[in-house]
Amino acid sequence: MRRCDELGAISEERGRLTRTFASPAMRRANKVVGSWMREAGLQVREDSAFNLIGGLPGTGRGAKTLLLGSHLDTVRNAGKYDGPLGVLAAIAAVQLLKERGVKLPFHLEVVGFSDEEGVRYHTTYLGSRALAGTLSAADLAHIAEKEIVKARRRKGEFLGYAEVHIEQGPVLEQKNLPVAIVTAIAGQSRLQVEFHGVAGHAGTVPMNSRQDALAGAAEFILAAESIASQAARAVCTVGKLVVDHGASNVIPGHVVFTVDVRHQNDVRRAAVVRTLHHRARTIAQHRGLKLTWASVQQTAAVPCDKTLTQIFSECVAQRGLEVLKLPSGAGHDAAALSAICPVAMLFVRCKGGISHNPAESVKSSDVASAIGVLADFIQTLAARYA
Amino acid sequence: MRRCDELGAISEERGRLTRTFASPAMRRANKVVGSWMREAGLQVREDSAFNLIGGLPGTGRGAKTLLLGSHLDTVRNAGKYDGPLGVLAAIAAVQLLKERGVKLPFHLEVVGFSDEEGVRYHTTYLGSRALAGTLSAADLAHIAEKEIVKARRRKGEFLGYAEVHIEQGPVLEQKNLPVAIVTAIAGQSRLQVEFHGVAGHAGTVPMNSRQDALAGAAEFILAAESIASQAARAVCTVGKLVVDHGASNVIPGHVVFTVDVRHQNDVRRAAVVRTLHHRARTIAQHRGLKLTWASVQQTAAVPCDKTLTQIFSECVAQRGLEVLKLPSGAGHDAAALSAICPVAMLFVRCKGGISHNPAESVKSSDVASAIGVLADFIQTLAARYA
Repeated sequence: MRRCDELGAISEERGRLTRTFASPAMRRANKVVGSWMREAGLQVREDSAFNLIGGLPGTGRGAKTLLLGSHLDTVRNAGKYDGPLGVLAAIAAVQLLKERGVKLPFHLEVVGFSDEEGVRYHTTYLGSRALAGTLSAADLAHIAEKEIVKARRRKGEFLGYAEVHIEQGPVLEQKNLPVAIVTAIAGQSRLQVEFHGVAGHAGTVPMNSRQDALAGAAEFILAAESIASQAARAVCTVGKLVVDHGASNVIPGHVVFTVDVRHQNDVRRAAVVRTLHHRARTIAQHRGLKLTWASVQQTAAVPCDKTLTQIFSECVAQRGLEVLKLPSGAGHDAAALSAICPVAMLFVRCKGGISHNPAESVKSSDVASAIGVLADFIQTLAARYA
Repeated sequence: MRRCDELGAISEERGRLTRTFASPAMRRANKVVGSWMREAGLQVREDSAFNLIGGLPGTGRGAKTLLLGSHLDTVRNAGKYDGPLGVLAAIAAVQLLKERGVKLPFHLEVVGFSDEEGVRYHTTYLGSRALAGTLSAADLAHIAEKEIVKARRRKGEFLGYAEVHIEQGPVLEQKNLPVAIVTAIAGQSRLQVEFHGVAGHAGTVPMNSRQDALAGAAEFILAAESIASQAARAVCTVGKLVVDHGASNVIPGHVVFTVDVRHQNDVRRAAVVRTLHHRARTIAQHRGLKLTWASVQQTAAVPCDKTLTQIFSECVAQRGLEVLKLPSGAGHDAAALSAICPVAMLFVRCKGGISHNPAESVKSSDVASAIGVLADFIQTLAARYA
C-alpha cells in the first residue's frame, strides 16, 4: 500500500496522476519499481517496448516461464491502483515465496507493461501486444518508437500469464468479498445509431403527427436496458447522445447515439446486438423514422484458461473465502497475452466500483488476500509442474 | 402570390431571405408594401416603431378602428409567407371591398409590424407591443431605437384586430381544408430538467447496479409523450438534451434537457406540468437519481374573441367550407394586441406544416379563400356595426 502511494506520486502532471507511454514519468516509475523488484530477488531489465521485467530463473531444465504482472501507465487524472496494484502484488507474492523458501521448477517473470491505457497514441495494449508480437503495421504507422516490435517473445515460451487487477465494478463490494476469479474478458460491440425524423415547431405539430427522433431514441434506450437486463451478464450502454440542432422549441429531427454491448460469450453478444437491431427497426417503422445502424468495432471475448482459473479457485477456497466468478467488462493486458499463452485473472474489491478517477480506493486487507492467493497460486502451480 | 414573391426577394442577406427590425431591407420592404397599400386606396404612414400603417377613414362619427395585419420582419433564412402573407392578404381584402363598393362605418388600418420574430434584439413582438403600449423598461434597456415607445395607441381605440397567418402545422393539410379559425394562442411552460445519476464504466457495472441518468431521461421523454397525447390538444416537446461528459464507454452520470408544454387552456397546461413533475420524481426515485426541476418561463394563453371568431366561422361556412377550429401553438402579434382589444385569427394551410424555412409554401387557391373570408368578415362586421 505504501508502494502504491509512492508510485502514485510519480506523474507527468503537477497535482494529479498521469503517466503515459515512454514519458519521463514512466522512466522514473520503472526505476522505482525496478528497485523493488531487486529487493524481491528479481533480475531487472527493460525490453525494447519499455516494459519493465523482473526475472527469477527456475530450476527445471527446458522450463517455460510463468508471467505475472499488469501495467504501470495510467489514464489522465488517474487513481493509484488500476494497473500498478497488479505489478506490486506480483512483486509482493514473489517476496512471500522467497520467505517461504519455495523453489520454482519454472522460470518466473514479473512484468510492468508500458502502455495499456493507450493515452499517448490512442491505441490499446501497446506494451503487452509488443511482447505478444501482435502489433500490426497499422498500429506502428503512427508510433515514433518503432523499436517496440523487438520486444516480441516466442509463442510457447510462457506456461501462462496471471494478472491481479481492481474490479472496476461494484459486485465484490455488494457481495462483501475481497477477491473474485475472472471467467473471461468480455467481448464488445460498439455501434453508432441514428434516427432521422422530421424537425418541426414544438407548438404547432400535434402529438399524433410527429416524427420525433429523440422520442425514438428514448424508446430504444429503454428497450436496450430491458434487453440487456434479461440476457444474463450482458451489459448495454448508450453513453453518448447528440440531438442535432437541438432547441427547446423544435421537435428533434435527427439524433445520433452510441451503443456499447459487452458479454463474455460472443454468440450471446451477437444475439443481443441482433435483438437490439430488430427493436430499432421496429421503433423506426412505427414512428416513421429512418434508421442508420453502423457497427463501429467488434472485439471477441477472451476466455480465461480453465486449469489456471481452477487453481485460483482452489487457493481462494483454501482461505475460507467464497469463490466468486465474474466476467471482466473492461479490457486488460491478459487479453493481449491470450494470443501466446493461457491467461488467468484475479479481481480485487475496490471502493464503489470506481476507477479511472483519483477516488480509486482499495482496502489493505483485500490486497493482502490477493497477494496471499497469488503466492499460493504460484506454489500450487509449481507443485503440479514439478 | 406575385407580391409574396417580390417581397420575398427583399433581404439583408444575399441568396436567402432575412429581414430584421429596422434594417435597410425592412425600409425597402415598407416602401414596396406602402406602394401596394396606396394602390388599394389606403393612406400610408410609418409609426415611430417602424410599423407600416395604411389607413382608411370610416364614415361613422366617433368610430373605432378595425386593425388588420401581421408582421413584415422574418427569421434568418426564412420562408416568404410567415408574416407577409397576413399583411398582403389584408391589403387584397381592402382592394376587394373597394371593388364591391363597400363603405365602412368604422375606420380601418392595415398594419405591417416591424418586429415579431425578435431576431435582432432577442425579444418578441417589438412592433405590436410598441403599438399596444406594453413594452417594459427592461425591454427598452437594450434597444437602440428608444423612440419606439411613441408608437403607443390608446386602449379602446380599436374595435378589434384580425390576422391571417400560415398555420405552421400539418392539421389543415391532414383535413384537406384551406383555412381554419384560431380559438386561442396557446400558453407555454418552459422547463429545464436534470437527472443526476452515477457515471460508471460501461463494461464493469451490471445492469441492475446502474444509476443511469440518460435511461431516466429516456423514461421521462416517453412518459411526457404519452401524458401530452392523453391530454386533448396539449403538446409537449423535449427539444434539447445534453449528456454531460458523454462517452461511448461511460454510463451517463448527468443529463440536462428542456421541456416545452403548450395548451390553449392555462389550467390544463398547469395540470400537465404537475403530472410531468410527479412522473419525473417517481422516475428519479425508482432509479436512484437526483432530480432538478426548474421553471424557465410561463406564458398565459390568449383566447380569441368569441364574437369576432363567430363572424369568421359564419364567413367560412358561407363558402361551403367545413369550419375547423384550432388553437395556435405558435405566438403571433395577435397575442400582443390582445392587451388593448379583442383579437381573432385565420390560419391558411401551408405545405407539410413547414415554416421558418425557405421551403414554406401555400396554394394560391387557399390564399384566395383567406382573402375572400377576410373581406366577408370585414363586410359582416360593418353590417353589424352600422
